[in-house]
Amino acid sequence: MSEAGTWPEAELTRDAFLGGQLQVWQPRQGYRAGVDPVLLAASVPARAGDTVLELGCGAGVASLCLGRRIDGLHLTGLELQPAYADLARRNAAGNRIKLQVMTGDLTQMPDDLRQKQFTHVIANPPYFDRNASTAANDAGRERALGEVTPLADWVRAAARRAAPKGYVTFIQRPDRLPDLLHEAQRHLGSIEVLPLLPRRGRLAQLILLRGRKGGRAAFRMHDGWVLHEGSRHDRDCENYTKATGAILRHGAALPFPV
Amino acid sequence: MSEAGTWPEAELTRDAFLGGQLQVWQPRQGYRAGVDPVLLAASVPARAGDTVLELGCGAGVASLCLGRRIDGLHLTGLELQPAYADLARRNAAGNRIKLQVMTGDLTQMPDDLRQKQFTHVIANPPYFDRNASTAANDAGRERALGEVTPLADWVRAAARRAAPKGYVTFIQRPDRLPDLLHEAQRHLGSIEVLPLLPRRGRLAQLILLRGRKGGRAAFRMHDGWVLHEGSRHDRDCENYTKATGAILRHGAALPFPV
Repeated sequence: MSEAGTWPEAELTRDAFLGGQLQVWQPRQGYRAGVDPVLLAASVPARAGDTVLELGCGAGVASLCLGRRIDGLHLTGLELQPAYADLARRNAAGNRIKLQVMTGDLTQMPDDLRQKQFTHVIANPPYFDRNASTAANDAGRERALGEVTPLADWVRAAARRAAPKGYVTFIQRPDRLPDLLHEAQRHLGSIEVLPLLPRRGRLAQLILLRGRKGGRAAFRMHDGWVLHEGSRHDRDCENYTKATGAILRHGAALPFPV
Repeated sequence: MSEAGTWPEAELTRDAFLGGQLQVWQPRQGYRAGVDPVLLAASVPARAGDTVLELGCGAGVASLCLGRRIDGLHLTGLELQPAYADLARRNAAGNRIKLQVMTGDLTQMPDDLRQKQFTHVIANPPYFDRNASTAANDAGRERALGEVTPLADWVRAAARRAAPKGYVTFIQRPDRLPDLLHEAQRHLGSIEVLPLLPRRGRLAQLILLRGRKGGRAAFRMHDGWVLHEGSRHDRDCENYTKATGAILRHGAALPFPV
């Protein structure tokens, strides 16, 4: 990253998501979106007219996937790092999706946002607890992957910004589920967990957690969503399940079971 | 229950478990074991020579199932209610399984137990949080189902009685998973959750949680174990999956995936 906090063009790559429905500029060396924000966006039960806030939106992949799937959303992203916020604005414009990107810290919510509540709040918070792992080399990647802001702050900020009966959806590594659940229980109700399994019979690789502001239903644990067919990885073939392929390549939804 | 704290014979039933390998006296009206203690016992990775403590053993079904599956265990049960402790002793004798049953409160651990540590501690704690549900009519059933002793105390007592690297295994309703996980994280490591699903694609109906005293592995979430075949209940037929049927009818193990 340059002094000005943006990347020279040569340090960016333009990557296709949703089978090319979305073209996203990302730093070659920094935090790079994988399938996680795509799966997060696919799981959000939003409808035209809903308002959506993404905490820590990075280059905007989750919000833009959601905007591509559902027309008529009012999308807002909050990003701490100005260079990523700039990228998200550029990516929104490039894909002709209306996404308002605010630069700011979720622990010191900008006044504009503090006065608003959203139908949906979504986040793909940093995966690694810095107390238990080593830092990434790249400062931006470190910020995106390492837990500078505690997970508890993400959950609290999300719950505060959710409207009554609004949905809060997080995607996380399973090893953070105990902490995530504990915090979610303090601030949300009607919590549901959907484990994402690499294959049938394997350990969960990611966890989708959804709760509702003021929800009163008991905690629910769903059967796992399977990402890949078969029992092992075949190098010559992506072998996503049909339903997962539809999400990643065609922008389909990933509905929580009812 | 009579004044003396035992049931007249007419108020007891003799029920078969493990396809008749185990015959268990239970109160007709009180807490009656279902598949839960059988599944709990099936999941315990014990070997001949291991010591096992069951907290809140009731009429002894889980410990006796475990003793039937694995020879050479040293089984101890702790039960608060003297009438259930008596039943557990009678059931152990009737099935010729060595089970030492102690009457006592897990929050005031009897001195004999306080000086011991076990290779395995297991429990099927009361399912319902009294703050969030109504009481059962029968006092003994209420004690077994309602949360007189907080779940946190069960987890702490279990962890204290586990030997270094010893296993603690609980079976619980999914709605208590957030609390159970939070407490388990405070006292145990290498925690794993195995959801038990009534059918593929359905919400978990029970949760097996296992942790190790002093374990250092990250939290793991397994793919669900499916209890019944097919997509709906057929009244004319039990239709357990083959693997679940082998546990319930033949005393097979329910191993956590590795």
